[in-house]
Amino acid sequence: MNALTKLRDRLLALDTASLSDAMDSLYIAGGLQGIKPQVSNMKIAGPAFTVQYEAYEPEKNTFMNAGNYIDEVPEGAIVVVDNQGRTDCTSWGNILTTRALQQKIAGTVIHGSVRDIADIRKMNYPLYACNVYMVSGKNRARVRAKQCELTIHGVKIAPDDWIVGDDNGVLAIPRERLMEVILRAENVEKTEQRILGTIKEGKKLEEARNTLGYAVPWESKA
Amino acid sequence: MNALTKLRDRLLALDTASLSDAMDSLYIAGGLQGIKPQVSNMKIAGPAFTVQYEAYEPEKNTFMNAGNYIDEVPEGAIVVVDNQGRTDCTSWGNILTTRALQQKIAGTVIHGSVRDIADIRKMNYPLYACNVYMVSGKNRARVRAKQCELTIHGVKIAPDDWIVGDDNGVLAIPRERLMEVILRAENVEKTEQRILGTIKEGKKLEEARNTLGYAVPWESKA
Amino acid sequence: MNALTKLRDRLLALDTASLSDAMDSLYIAGGLQGIKPQVSNMKIAGPAFTVQYEAYEPEKNTFMNAGNYIDEVPEGAIVVVDNQGRTDCTSWGNILTTRALQQKIAGTVIHGSVRDIADIRKMNYPLYACNVYMVSGKNRARVRAKQCELTIHGVKIAPDDWIVGDDNGVLAIPRERLMEVILRAENVEKTEQRILGTIKEGKKLEEARNTLGYAVPWESKA
Repeated sequence: MNALTKLRDRLLALDTASLSDAMDSLYIAGGLQGIKPQVSNMKIAGPAFTVQYEAYEPEKNTFMNAGNYIDEVPEGAIVVVDNQGRTDCTSWGNILTTRALQQKIAGTVIHGSVRDIADIRKMNYPLYACNVYMVSGKNRARVRAKQCELTIHGVKIAPDDWIVGDDNGVLAIPRERLMEVILRAENVEKTEQRILGTIKEGKKLEEARNTLGYAVPWESKA
Repeated sequence: MNALTKLRDRLLALDTASLSDAMDSLYIAGGLQGIKPQVSNMKIAGPAFTVQYEAYEPEKNTFMNAGNYIDEVPEGAIVVVDNQGRTDCTSWGNILTTRALQQKIAGTVIHGSVRDIADIRKMNYPLYACNVYMVSGKNRARVRAKQCELTIHGVKIAPDDWIVGDDNGVLAIPRERLMEVILRAENVEKTEQRILGTIKEGKKLEEARNTLGYAVPWESKA
Repeated sequence: MNALTKLRDRLLALDTASLSDAMDSLYIAGGLQGIKPQVSNMKIAGPAFTVQYEAYEPEKNTFMNAGNYIDEVPEGAIVVVDNQGRTDCTSWGNILTTRALQQKIAGTVIHGSVRDIADIRKMNYPLYACNVYMVSGKNRARVRAKQCELTIHGVKIAPDDWIVGDDNGVLAIPRERLMEVILRAENVEKTEQRILGTIKEGKKLEEARNTLGYAVPWESKA
C-alpha cells in the first residue's frame, strides 16, 4: 500500500465536519461553498487535478473540445474545475464520467454546472457541483489553465492539495498541512464519539462537553 | 392523552398546505421561506423552543459551546434556530441530533445551515434547514437569546407558537390563533377531498370547484 | 399512431443534453434556467399549453380560482406556467395534478413554486418547478393570459412549441424548428454512442473525439 493510498484511507475514515473543525483549530479555510453532492451517499478523498475555465464566445462555426484535459488526470486524483459557479452552461457530463471511471479517477468537483445526471447516478460516480442543467459549455467556456491555483469563494486550491467530499459538501486541504489536519481531525472524532457515548447514557450535553473537552476537541486525550 | 398530544395529533392529520390556506383566510402569515426538508417524508408539529443566534468573531484561542440550550428543550417541542439564513457555517449536527432524540424533541428548524446530514438521515430525525455544509458555527455565531421572539422573512415566531413541517416546508402558527386555524384547515381538507372525489369521477375542475365551495373552503358544509 | 405520438416517441428516445447540443448548432436558445425536476426519474415531451400569471392583490374577502385553465388543456400537452419564478406562493398542487392525470396531460413546468409535493411524488406525475413551498397562489397571483407567448430567462415559448424535460431540466423547442432539432440530436446521440464505445475500449478522449467528429456531432456519418 503506497503513501497516497494510506492517506486516502485515513481521510475516508473521517468526515468533512471533523476535518473542517481541525482546520478551524489551525485557522485554515477549506469549505467550498455552494458545491453540493449531485450523487448521494458518496465519500471521496484524493489530490486535486485543477482546471480553470473562463467565459468564451467563439466566432460562429468554430467548435472547441474543452474536456480533453481528462486524459492527463492520474489514477486516484480528483478533478476540480472552476467555471466560476456558472449556472447557464455545464462543464461535466457522461462522456467525461465514462472516461474518468476508465482512468480510475476518484471523483469530480465542479464550481459550476453538470449534465447527464441520470446516467452519472446510474454509474455511481462521485460528483459534486453547484447546479444541474443541460446546456453544453462548448463555445461558452474554455480551459484557461490546467494544474494552476484556483480560488473558490476565497479558498485557494493548488494542484495536489487534498480534496475531501461527502454528503455535507467539499473541503480543500493544503497539502503541506495535511498531516496536522488529519491528526487533529482524528482527535476531534474521538472526542465526539466519547460525547455521543455519554449522551446516549442520558447525560446532559453541557456535562458531556465539559467533561470531555469539547472546547479543544482536537487535543489528544488518550 | 394530554392537551398537547391531542393538538399535535390533529395537526399531524393535516398538512402545511391546508393550514396555510386556513391562515390565509384569517390574514395570518406563517410560511418560513427558504427552509427546506433535509430529511424526506417527515411530518412534525409541536410548540417552538426558539433560539436567536448572532454573528460573532472571538479572539483567537477562545472557544464557545453554542448548543447547550438543548438541555432545556422540553419533550415534544420543536427547536427553531434563527441564524439569519447563513450558508457559511452550521448550527446543527449529529451531537445535537443524538441529544434531541434522547430528549424526545419532535424536530428542528434551522434558518441557516446544518451538517452531519448523512448521520441525521440514518437517525431519521426531522430536520428542516436552508442549507447543508460542513463548517462549524463555533466561533462564527453564538446564542444571543433563548425563548425570545424570532422574525424569519417577516414571520414572527414566539416561544410556544406552533410549528408544523412536512415535505412542502415549515409553517409557524401563533399559539393564540391555533384552534381557529385547525378548525378552518380541517374544513379546507374536507372541501379538497370532495373536490378530488368529484374530479376522479371525471368532472371538470371549474364545475367541481363551483359546486363544492372552493372559494371559501374553510367554511363547514357538513 | 398519429403524428404527435411519433414526434413524442422520437423526442423521448433522446435527452435534453443532445437536444440542447442540436439547438446550439442551430443557434437557438432553449434551456429554462432554474426549473428543476421535483419528481425524479421522469422524462416528458409534448406541445406547450402556456399560462401567464401576474402578481395580484385582491380586496379582502374576494377569492379567485386561478387554476381553471386546466379544463382546456388537451391530452398529451405539457402545461407551462410562468409565475415569474416566484418563491413566495405556489401555482400547482394536488388538485391540479389529479385533474391533469384524468386528462392525460403529459406533465407540468412551473416557473415558480409548487405544493403538495409528497402527494404528487406518490402519483408519479412529472413536475418541474423552481421551488417547493406551501402558501397558495390564490389572491397572490392570477392568470393574465392563456395560450400566449411566454419569456423565461430570455427563452420565448409560444403555444404548441415543444417542451422536453428530464433530470437535467427543461428545454423549449420552437415548433417550426422541431424536425431540424430532432434530426441533429439523433446524430449527436449516435456520435456520442460511438465516442463512449471507443472510450470503453480504453482510447483517450482526445483520440475518440478527433476520430469520431465530436466538433460537429450533429452531422450524419452513417
